[in-house]
Amino acid sequence: MVDIATRVYNHKWKIDPIVRSLIDTDFYKLLMCQSVFHNKPDTQVSFSLINRTKTIRLAELIDEGELREQLDHIRTLRLSRGESTWLRGNMFYGKRQMFRSDFMEWFEGLQLPPYHLEKRDGQYELTFEGAWPEVMLWEVPALAVLMELRGRAVLQHMGKFELQVLYARAMTKLWEKVEQLRGIDKLRIADFGTRRRHSFLWQDWCVQALMEGLGDKFVGTSNCLIAMHREVEAIGTNAHELPMVYAALADSDAELAQAPYQVLADWHQEHEGNLRIILPDTYGTEGFLRNAPDWLTSWTGVRIDSGDPAEGAEMAIRWWQDRGEDPREKLVIFSDGLDVDKIVTLQAQFQGRVKVSFGWGTLLTNDFRGLVTDDALAPFSLVCKAVSANGRPTVKLSDNPLKAMGPADEIARYKRVFGVGEQVAREVVV
Amino acid sequence: MVDIATRVYNHKWKIDPIVRSLIDTDFYKLLMCQSVFHNKPDTQVSFSLINRTKTIRLAELIDEGELREQLDHIRTLRLSRGESTWLRGNMFYGKRQMFRSDFMEWFEGLQLPPYHLEKRDGQYELTFEGAWPEVMLWEVPALAVLMELRGRAVLQHMGKFELQVLYARAMTKLWEKVEQLRGIDKLRIADFGTRRRHSFLWQDWCVQALMEGLGDKFVGTSNCLIAMHREVEAIGTNAHELPMVYAALADSDAELAQAPYQVLADWHQEHEGNLRIILPDTYGTEGFLRNAPDWLTSWTGVRIDSGDPAEGAEMAIRWWQDRGEDPREKLVIFSDGLDVDKIVTLQAQFQGRVKVSFGWGTLLTNDFRGLVTDDALAPFSLVCKAVSANGRPTVKLSDNPLKAMGPADEIARYKRVFGVGEQVAREVVV
Repeated sequence: MVDIATRVYNHKWKIDPIVRSLIDTDFYKLLMCQSVFHNKPDTQVSFSLINRTKTIRLAELIDEGELREQLDHIRTLRLSRGESTWLRGNMFYGKRQMFRSDFMEWFEGLQLPPYHLEKRDGQYELTFEGAWPEVMLWEVPALAVLMELRGRAVLQHMGKFELQVLYARAMTKLWEKVEQLRGIDKLRIADFGTRRRHSFLWQDWCVQALMEGLGDKFVGTSNCLIAMHREVEAIGTNAHELPMVYAALADSDAELAQAPYQVLADWHQEHEGNLRIILPDTYGTEGFLRNAPDWLTSWTGVRIDSGDPAEGAEMAIRWWQDRGEDPREKLVIFSDGLDVDKIVTLQAQFQGRVKVSFGWGTLLTNDFRGLVTDDALAPFSLVCKAVSANGRPTVKLSDNPLKAMGPADEIARYKRVFGVGEQVAREVVV
Repeated sequence: MVDIATRVYNHKWKIDPIVRSLIDTDFYKLLMCQSVFHNKPDTQVSFSLINRTKTIRLAELIDEGELREQLDHIRTLRLSRGESTWLRGNMFYGKRQMFRSDFMEWFEGLQLPPYHLEKRDGQYELTFEGAWPEVMLWEVPALAVLMELRGRAVLQHMGKFELQVLYARAMTKLWEKVEQLRGIDKLRIADFGTRRRHSFLWQDWCVQALMEGLGDKFVGTSNCLIAMHREVEAIGTNAHELPMVYAALADSDAELAQAPYQVLADWHQEHEGNLRIILPDTYGTEGFLRNAPDWLTSWTGVRIDSGDPAEGAEMAIRWWQDRGEDPREKLVIFSDGLDVDKIVTLQAQFQGRVKVSFGWGTLLTNDFRGLVTDDALAPFSLVCKAVSANGRPTVKLSDNPLKAMGPADEIARYKRVFGVGEQVAREVVV
């Protein structure tokens, strides 16, 4: 039977909204947002879209009107009662009332701030300016909108069965990964694929497939909305934007050198256990660990998000050992450009030496490589980053020079302050 | 929105019927049925299920109660008003009123006769006895029920996403075939896969995928119900049961030798054009062509259904040439155990020399090979054949000794009468 009402309802949509909830975002955004809300609420920031894959000319693929409609729709979103109840009442990382009342009241009243959109050289210049806690929440939905609109542009000329087979192929591809992964002893893997997903429905499918296919080897999703609907753990801790903005706000080189530790000192006040995860690569992992204060060694783990992941993990292990910690009690989370082969290799290399966990992103939720002509659905490297704070430019170095961002003179200054030497370039796929 | 009514309706099914229409059968069955209805209405026949793949122990896989429920359900079916209207009014092979009023009135009143079911040696003995026009209509639905119940037995332990991926893989597999086939110039291909399909819904999906993917290279389906719903041509002419029963009814060796030609003489009265297709292999293609009456050379084509297909086609081409016919005006239909590679090869070999067409069966609608553990969904060689007529056993030789059936002494007699010499055995896959 045709459900006539559903059909009529679908037909009368003016747009098919890509992001339909303020919590269709990564859990760590909300954790960081609360932290920023308490520690740096008045910081004025600017976030900007950066397409690192210049060959994909987004402004030629995506209609500006459609993009504006999607972004405008996101500005109409408000936290719903059920979402608020879930955030207030759900247990995250073993803790209830993770989100405090003052933050929740602010979040319940939140509307995302205006955006600025221009076309330049075949790309979109999309920027968001305002108070940090508000602006930062644009990052994930903005990326998701651009990725999905690009996909829709490719899909719109396909036939019904061609489309069905496309998704059949993508499902098959994912399931083959599941079949490889489920043989891995002691695997712990989470979905980190919200921002560069093929689409919301596809991410939701992927999560459910991992739930069935991996059982308790699948530990959760970074996507709050999906975590709520599918009743799995919401996963995530913190990201580069914290040290980037803290660093930009530093008034001297000495303050700059301390900024990444100040971020974690603030985090230390608020969180414990598995939320105490160091992201050491913002200005070079090696220097970060070398100069780290002693109290950081008691933290639960590190997240390796750039550079050679095995090297990063070995560095962390040596660091713990040098400081008298037992690495077997520590957690290493790999989250950079993962796919099955890399997961298999890293797990084999580190299982037993440290606790290992994986945050699997784009190649979980957007592996449409090889499925259409000209590989027009292959994921690409799109980011949305804090580019300035209180009028000063931000800088990111990471452990891969191809991921560095910021004005050249500032990059040079940061390299000097953080003692970053020669770095090995690694292709940025996603 | 959930369509509550649909959900409740689905939930209250006592069974999920596999065959839901008397025209969920092959078109040639109806053409032959009308012919039998007029020429041999009172012939008493017995049809029997034969599982040529002995390693698949159907009685251990399929619950007898479920099998009986499905067969009982088929006995409740009656030709619906819309189906009758379609059969009476639709144009088949360019002709309206293909089915005459007396036949249609009989068909409208038809209930399939009782069945006899027993288990023996891990197999089901399923037989149908009665008047030929009634009993013959059991063949296709009985096979479809057994194939689908065997599939359901395998599927019932699978998870929701595992199932979705199974079908995703099957879709991908079929679409890869479509992509290979659509590059073939002048291809003409029809679905002949009703009897050994994975399921009705899967066959229906396959047909629609071919419609979209192959465009007018897809010429139609043998399945009347799907032809009606999807508004494509219903395809098919005649099968071995006609010469097998005519032969069994012969009172002497001389009459036996003429029986296959008598079948076609009766057919000649009724049909013209593309329905005049010789199926020459029942008692050996070579002898059949050697001894064929001259009027048969005017027929439109031959269908090659056993033996080496290229050899069979070459034989037909030589026969036409020897009798002064231009093979380029003739049609060769290949229908035995086809898959893409064989189709590609045969098309390349014969295109331009004759008109070529393909009746693609089991490996179109049931290619689940390699998709589950132990290949438990791979199709197998299940047939349902006329085994006796008016108390006399039937015999089939074909061009492959592994497909021969009938009592040994009768096989020997038929071989002598039809001058069949040494034959090359070819593995029967489906």
